[in-house]
Amino acid sequence: MIAIDWGTSSFRAYRLAPDGTIADKRRAELGILAVTDGKFAEALEGQVSDWLEADAAPVVMSGMIGSRQGWKEAPYAQCPAGVKEIAAGMVEVRWGSARSAWIVPGLSCRDAQGVPDVMRGEETQLLGALDDVSERSAWVCLPGTHSKWARLEAAKIMRFATYMTGEVFAVMKAHSILGRMMEDTRLDPVAFESGVLRARDSGGLLHHMFGVRARGLSGDLSDDESGAYLSGLLIGHELAAIPRLIGAVYLLGAPQLTHLYAEALKCYGVDAGILDADAAVRGLFKLAGTLPQS
Amino acid sequence: MIAIDWGTSSFRAYRLAPDGTIADKRRAELGILAVTDGKFAEALEGQVSDWLEADAAPVVMSGMIGSRQGWKEAPYAQCPAGVKEIAAGMVEVRWGSARSAWIVPGLSCRDAQGVPDVMRGEETQLLGALDDVSERSAWVCLPGTHSKWARLEAAKIMRFATYMTGEVFAVMKAHSILGRMMEDTRLDPVAFESGVLRARDSGGLLHHMFGVRARGLSGDLSDDESGAYLSGLLIGHELAAIPRLIGAVYLLGAPQLTHLYAEALKCYGVDAGILDADAAVRGLFKLAGTLPQS
Repeated sequence: MIAIDWGTSSFRAYRLAPDGTIADKRRAELGILAVTDGKFAEALEGQVSDWLEADAAPVVMSGMIGSRQGWKEAPYAQCPAGVKEIAAGMVEVRWGSARSAWIVPGLSCRDAQGVPDVMRGEETQLLGALDDVSERSAWVCLPGTHSKWARLEAAKIMRFATYMTGEVFAVMKAHSILGRMMEDTRLDPVAFESGVLRARDSGGLLHHMFGVRARGLSGDLSDDESGAYLSGLLIGHELAAIPRLIGAVYLLGAPQLTHLYAEALKCYGVDAGILDADAAVRGLFKLAGTLPQS
Repeated sequence: MIAIDWGTSSFRAYRLAPDGTIADKRRAELGILAVTDGKFAEALEGQVSDWLEADAAPVVMSGMIGSRQGWKEAPYAQCPAGVKEIAAGMVEVRWGSARSAWIVPGLSCRDAQGVPDVMRGEETQLLGALDDVSERSAWVCLPGTHSKWARLEAAKIMRFATYMTGEVFAVMKAHSILGRMMEDTRLDPVAFESGVLRARDSGGLLHHMFGVRARGLSGDLSDDESGAYLSGLLIGHELAAIPRLIGAVYLLGAPQLTHLYAEALKCYGVDAGILDADAAVRGLFKLAGTLPQS
């Protein structure tokens, strides 16, 4: 099969052997925002037409390619959802004389107050990671611009919540008064931990953030510590908001981010397991397995 | 006397009669950031040299003019502080043959964990508002880019805390994914209240903020409601962080902001009094009264 992880800013393609091992892979800076006039078929052919010519095997794609701005909208599946429920929401796109591909739906849930949350792409990573989670129930955190915390139970994603941690950090650093004094040559681990622990104090995030400035003005925090402190503060507030952060906790994502989150979790007494960052490919392989053989 | 409220982006001057009534006032877009090469004396003379020529009375200035980036740094006074304690921290600047002015210090405090907080300019507004607060103890909120909550007791500022509410709103609206879908022709009061109340739910601010997007994607929130909802969410989180928000609560600031905060406080069952927005002038008048007569 051909597995495609097609997000907002990048395109990753994998050619998989029948047993799921990766035979070949390609990557391009060809996210859906870089594709104009809806020419997604042309973009895909431009990257992997040789694979498409050679294989009759299914093509399965996950990520923002299934959003309203993508090739074709694949409406969100609803939690709780496992492989079967998500596979049922795949939508097909056809082009050329006989080409076809399947787009994985995103996943949605509503909390006790009825407020919705959404993911698109992470559901496929979670499906791919299921086999590495030995506990019947576990938390899986996918840190990032919009960090996701998903509750897994019996091979299903029961519910999840998104935190704007990464984006708030980037935006405050680039555009707020806090960023003006940041000089981050390195991520100071002591300042980071101090930020993580500050999140547990009363006062709330809006107050704690001003502390970056007040501590800077008073000399408590140097300019090359303030970025790490703010990062710790935001991740700490994310962790403090997770209900019942006990039992098995896993991290899934880029190594530098999972390392940072693992350090933050240690401050709260939680030892997190690290899952294989390439879980999306295995998720796409599982979903392809549900399709009728062509 | 001559009272000057000299902030980062604006300059406001008042000529006061001996009884404290405003005889004349002037305003210029001449904040300290607009003054180059430290030419503050020249900037002041350029605005009010006629007043300075006519009056031998004292000149007292508050705001960022006393910061490290201002005319001369006036180190922070420490809480608890009333008129006497703040007046004791005023620093004098001299120029020309016999000109002189006093700069009001900012105010600083440390919370139970030893984390500092600072204000510069608001302490003078609070001193000016003291006479309008009849209760022995009260909360005074000065909403804004960096919103301040001060606890007043027996005519002293006991402690205070700063919340980055206004700046986080502005930065997220202008630079984050949340702002992309905002079309605020008006501030929808129902969406605003819904945001204020959402702050009381579990999940934390970083998660609640993503709800602006998730609600938008799911059709729960329209593009012209999302700005009001985010504003309510942030103000709601600020209010939720105030410890023991009971008893007398006052608001001091620009009318559109105090109105917004009064509406948010009503959602939490608190009726706030509105203080005169020109309190800074009266604070400067009080501080001038502590100076020896020339």
